[in-house]
Amino acid sequence: MTNKRDGEIALPFDPAAESGPSVAFIGKIRSPWSPGNAPGNVKGARARLAEEGGACFIELDPRYADGLLGLEPGRQIIVLYWMDQGRRDLIVQTPRHTDGPRGVFSLRSPVRPNPIAMSTVEITSVDGTRIGIDAIDCFDGTPVVDIKPWIATVDQPVAQQPKG
Amino acid sequence: MTNKRDGEIALPFDPAAESGPSVAFIGKIRSPWSPGNAPGNVKGARARLAEEGGACFIELDPRYADGLLGLEPGRQIIVLYWMDQGRRDLIVQTPRHTDGPRGVFSLRSPVRPNPIAMSTVEITSVDGTRIGIDAIDCFDGTPVVDIKPWIATVDQPVAQQPKG
Repeated sequence: MTNKRDGEIALPFDPAAESGPSVAFIGKIRSPWSPGNAPGNVKGARARLAEEGGACFIELDPRYADGLLGLEPGRQIIVLYWMDQGRRDLIVQTPRHTDGPRGVFSLRSPVRPNPIAMSTVEITSVDGTRIGIDAIDCFDGTPVVDIKPWIATVDQPVAQQPKG
Repeated sequence: MTNKRDGEIALPFDPAAESGPSVAFIGKIRSPWSPGNAPGNVKGARARLAEEGGACFIELDPRYADGLLGLEPGRQIIVLYWMDQGRRDLIVQTPRHTDGPRGVFSLRSPVRPNPIAMSTVEITSVDGTRIGIDAIDCFDGTPVVDIKPWIATVDQPVAQQPKG
């Protein structure tokens, strides 16, 4: 794990080897995207799907099916997924879209100590444990770790929240 | 793990025992809240702090300090934290604020297969690895698993996003 671009800094240890609790994978993302051919974020994914067609959905592990009670098409959800293809030790990175090195906690890079990515998406269908979503940016097969309802008073900056 | 309210359903297995990757704790939350005396969400936390005073911050593990490069007061961040005090197997729950049982994926309950909670908060100060935040709802000492910059095009429902 020593490949770095100029200005990048790797931790002297691998966060993957820390003795924390285990993550349970609750399903997987199905998407048209594969390594080398994926949008950079969910906005890019929406644009690609509008141009090229294709569909995105969550394939929930059937053991967790009861957890869907109350979720319906039209609902805004936050999907948390585990970006399992990358290293976890790159604490300072130099993405192409920034003008210099940035700490990982000021970036949405999938390369991070806990490679949890998240996007806010709309449910388009629910068919058993197959949940259609309007878009997502990750590779086909990416493990899902959580689904949460989006709530303005928790997920929006205070200045943008509805009053009252 | 068999205590349930009416209508609640527990999984026949414990997600904590699934063989997924390990979570690395990158720091801990400091807050005025303890079990039995905590607000229900970050909005409630803001109200309590305004009335009672008190401060919330993130104490980052110094090994991850370089990851803060680029984060400044005024920035909106999403904090992901691990709600380690509860069970992980309650797949259908009956919270007091709903009119019946709900699947965990339609709730923000801290009791969930992966007990990751998240709130969008504002950075109020950065002093070394101590990051002041305007509020948070979890108990003092709660482990932190990630900090991300809030980005409108990823984190807001499409209908609310700025055009263009």
